[in-house]
Amino acid sequence: MDSAEFRRAAHQMVEYIIEYMENIKNRQVLPSIEPGYIRTLLPGEAPENPEKWENILGDIERVIMPGVTHWHSPHFHAYYPTGNSWPSLLADMLSDAIGCIGFTWMASPACTELETLMMDWLGKLLDLPKCFLSEESEGVGGGVIQTTASEATLVCMLAAKTKTIQKYRALEPQWKESEILERLIVYGSDQAHSSVERAALLAGVKYRSLQSNREYSLEGNAVKQAIKKDRDEGLIPFFVIVTLGTTPSCAFDKLDEIGSVCEEEEIWIHVDAAYAGSAFICPEYRHHLNGINLADSFNFNPHKWLMVHFDCSALWLKNSKDLVDAFNIDPVYLRHDKQSKTLDYRHWQIPLGRRFRSLKLWFVLRIYGAEGLRKHIRKQCNLAKAFSDLVHSDDRFEIPVQSQLGLVCFRLKGDNELSKELLKRINERKKIHLVPSVLRGIYVIRFAVCSRLTEIEHVEFAWNEIRECV
Amino acid sequence: MDSAEFRRAAHQMVEYIIEYMENIKNRQVLPSIEPGYIRTLLPGEAPENPEKWENILGDIERVIMPGVTHWHSPHFHAYYPTGNSWPSLLADMLSDAIGCIGFTWMASPACTELETLMMDWLGKLLDLPKCFLSEESEGVGGGVIQTTASEATLVCMLAAKTKTIQKYRALEPQWKESEILERLIVYGSDQAHSSVERAALLAGVKYRSLQSNREYSLEGNAVKQAIKKDRDEGLIPFFVIVTLGTTPSCAFDKLDEIGSVCEEEEIWIHVDAAYAGSAFICPEYRHHLNGINLADSFNFNPHKWLMVHFDCSALWLKNSKDLVDAFNIDPVYLRHDKQSKTLDYRHWQIPLGRRFRSLKLWFVLRIYGAEGLRKHIRKQCNLAKAFSDLVHSDDRFEIPVQSQLGLVCFRLKGDNELSKELLKRINERKKIHLVPSVLRGIYVIRFAVCSRLTEIEHVEFAWNEIRECV
Repeated sequence: MDSAEFRRAAHQMVEYIIEYMENIKNRQVLPSIEPGYIRTLLPGEAPENPEKWENILGDIERVIMPGVTHWHSPHFHAYYPTGNSWPSLLADMLSDAIGCIGFTWMASPACTELETLMMDWLGKLLDLPKCFLSEESEGVGGGVIQTTASEATLVCMLAAKTKTIQKYRALEPQWKESEILERLIVYGSDQAHSSVERAALLAGVKYRSLQSNREYSLEGNAVKQAIKKDRDEGLIPFFVIVTLGTTPSCAFDKLDEIGSVCEEEEIWIHVDAAYAGSAFICPEYRHHLNGINLADSFNFNPHKWLMVHFDCSALWLKNSKDLVDAFNIDPVYLRHDKQSKTLDYRHWQIPLGRRFRSLKLWFVLRIYGAEGLRKHIRKQCNLAKAFSDLVHSDDRFEIPVQSQLGLVCFRLKGDNELSKELLKRINERKKIHLVPSVLRGIYVIRFAVCSRLTEIEHVEFAWNEIRECV
Repeated sequence: MDSAEFRRAAHQMVEYIIEYMENIKNRQVLPSIEPGYIRTLLPGEAPENPEKWENILGDIERVIMPGVTHWHSPHFHAYYPTGNSWPSLLADMLSDAIGCIGFTWMASPACTELETLMMDWLGKLLDLPKCFLSEESEGVGGGVIQTTASEATLVCMLAAKTKTIQKYRALEPQWKESEILERLIVYGSDQAHSSVERAALLAGVKYRSLQSNREYSLEGNAVKQAIKKDRDEGLIPFFVIVTLGTTPSCAFDKLDEIGSVCEEEEIWIHVDAAYAGSAFICPEYRHHLNGINLADSFNFNPHKWLMVHFDCSALWLKNSKDLVDAFNIDPVYLRHDKQSKTLDYRHWQIPLGRRFRSLKLWFVLRIYGAEGLRKHIRKQCNLAKAFSDLVHSDDRFEIPVQSQLGLVCFRLKGDNELSKELLKRINERKKIHLVPSVLRGIYVIRFAVCSRLTEIEHVEFAWNEIRECV
C-alpha cells in the first residue's frame, strides 16, 4: 500500500466511521453470535501473499461487526460510559502517525511536555490543589496519563509499598524486608472496584475490605477502627483507597473524614474517581472532592466521561518522587543530556514504552472548551434524572439507593429473582444492554447513561423496553 | 464538531499525515528545543469556550512538530525500530471508532476472538510449537496482546511467582508465605533489558544478573551453576528470562541449553525476543528460537519490526491457566452467561480495560502477506550489512561484536572517550540519531536500521555524517 492507496483507503474509512456513528442506534447493541464465531468466518492462517484493501474493507461488516458490542450506541447502558468524540479520533490519527515512543523526554520532548501541561490544564478544571499541579508545585507534584484506573491503583500501591518498607527499615532495623512485607495491609471499601483487591494481590500485600455505611460510603470511623485493630495485631496499614463514585452504585466515600484519619497515621490515600471524576469540572459536583488536599494520589478516567477515547487515565501525585523511587532503573541506552532538567515518564508507570496520548486531551479540551464539556456532563445527568422519574412513576419498581450523576440503580419490588429474570430477558432481546450489581444482598439493575449520542428518546425507548420485558 | 466537520477535518488530517511521512526525511530528526519549550507556546489553562479546528490544525506544525523526535525518519537509528505502516493506521482508526473495551468476551466478542485468532496466525508464522497456539492446544495455551515487552515480563513473573508460592505451600506447609517469598529469585543475563530487573523490583522478588559469555549470550551452564549455588543457600530460583536479541548488542541467549537446565529444575522460562522475534518469520533466522518448546512463555513486539504501530506486544503462554490463577478476581458486574465457553482476557493482563488491537495485526498481515513482511525484514538486515561493510572499510573504526539482524555496534578504535565524543557530536548536529551501549566496559555506538523508509542512500548519508563528525 502506497500513500495514494492510503489516501483512498483512509477516505473510505472516514466515510465508514461516519456512517457507523450516524446509524449506530439502528444496530442491535448486543451481538447475536456464539463463542467461536470468528473461526467460522476467517482462514486459520495468515495469507502468504498480499490481499486487496477492498477485501479487508468488506470484511469489517462481514466479520467484525456481527461480533461487536456497540459501546457507543445510545442503547448501551452497561458498566460506565467509555469516551468517544470526533476530535479525539483526529488526535489519535496524528498520534499514530507520529508514532513516537515517549519513554524519556529526549525520545520525543513534545510527548512529555504536552502531557505535563495537559495534566495541569485538567487539574485546574477540577480545581485540584496546587500541590498536584506540575508548574505550581515546581515539579514536585504533577500528573501522568496511565492506561487504566486499575493500573493507576497498582502504580500508587507499589510506590506506597516501597516508601513504607524504606520507612520501617529505618524505624526497625532488626526486621527483615520480608517481615515488614508480611505486615503490610491495604484498605478499601466493600464497594471498591475489584481492581483494588487485584492490585493488592499483584503487589503481594494483604487487603481488607471495610464495611461501608448505609449509603454504601466508607466513613472515616471505619478506617480508624481498622487501623487500630490491625496495628494492635502488629500489622502495618499503609494504603487506603477512597472511591468517589463506586462501580456498583456510584456511592462516594467520605474523603475528608478518611483524609483526616490517614494524615495522622501517615497512610497513603489514593482516590479513585474513575467515572465520577469528570463531573468535578462542574462546580455543583466539585464538593465530592473536598478533602483532596489530604490525598497522596488522585485518579480519574477522561476516557470514561470526558469525550476522550480509551486509553487515557489521568493520575496526579502529590510527590512524584515516591513513584520515581519505586520504579527507577537507569540503563545507559536510555540516558540523555537533559535528564537533570526534565522528567522522564518511564519512571512513572509500569510499561517502558508509551504513546502520545495527551494529544487527545488537547484536541478535545480545545474543540469543546471547558463549557462544552460541562454541558455534556450536565446533559447526561439530566437524562439519568429523567430515567429515574420514569422508574418512580411505575409502582412495580423501586430505586433502593440514591441515584448519582449518570447512574440509576433500580429493581422490581420483591424477590431478587424477579429482577434477575427481568435483566436476563432484557439482554436476551439485545435491544438495550444493562448489567447488574448486588448491593449488600439486594440485586439491582444498573442504568447508566453512556453514549454521547444518548437523547431523551433513547431513555424512553429503554424504559419501554424494560416495561415490555416485565 | 459534527460529522460534516469531522469529514473535512479528517481529510485534512489524512493529507497532513501523508505529507508528514513523505517528507519526513527532510525534517531534522532530533528537535532543537530546550526543556520547558511547550509552556512558552501554549496557554496555562484550558480554553473556556470552543476553539476552531483550523487553530488546532495549525498548532500541530507550530507547537508539536518542533518538539518531536522523528522515530519514522530514515535518519533515526536509535534504540530499535518502532512499527508504522498505512494499514496499521487504518486499523487503529477503526479500533478507535468502535471504541469497545474488551475486558470480557461479552464486552465485545469480536475483540477477544480476533485477538485469539491473530495470535494463532502470528504463532504459525513463527512456527511456534502447537502448545502455544490456542486452537491446537484446545485453549490450554494461547496468545494475548500486551502493551509492552516490559509488561509481558512482569505479567509472566507474577504468574510464575503465584504458581511457585502455591507449590511450596504444599511442599513445605510449615513455611509462611513471606518465608517462601523471601527465598524467590529470578535470573537474567547481564545483557537483559532493564525492564527485567524492574519487574523483579515490582514483583518484590530477588534478581540475579548472570554473566553472559564472550559473545554476550547467556549459557545453560551459568544458569545451572547459579541454581545450584542459590539452592544450597536456601533460595528458590523460579523464573529465568532468556533474551533473544539483547538491547545492547542483539546477542542471543542459548535458549536450548537453558531450556534443558530449567526443565529438570521446574523453573519458568520466559523468552523475551522483543526486537528479534519479528525476524523469526524468516526461515533463515528461525534457528534462534530452537528450544522454544521448553519455554513457558514467549514474547515479541510486532510493534517493533512488523509494521504494526505501538502498542502491540505479542505474548504466548503454554498454560494460560497460570495467568488466570494469578490474576482472577470476579465481580458480579463483569460476569456473563457465556463465561464457561469463552476466555476473558481481563485475567491475562494487569489493566482491566483493553483496546481492539488485533485489528492492526489483521490489516497488516493481509495487506503485506507473510511474504511482504519477510521482504521487509530481509531488506533491513541487508541495509545493516551494507552499513557494517562501510565501517569495515575505514581503518579508524572497529565492530567489536558480531552484527545481528538490523543492528551494528561500532566504535572508534582506542579509548572509549573518542567514541563518546563522536556520538555527542553526531547527536548535537541532529541530522541522524543514534544511542550508545556499554558492552563489558567497551563503549559502542549502536546503529539500528529503524524506519520502514530507510534506503541505501540513508545508510550512506549516516555513514558520511559519522565520518564528518570524527
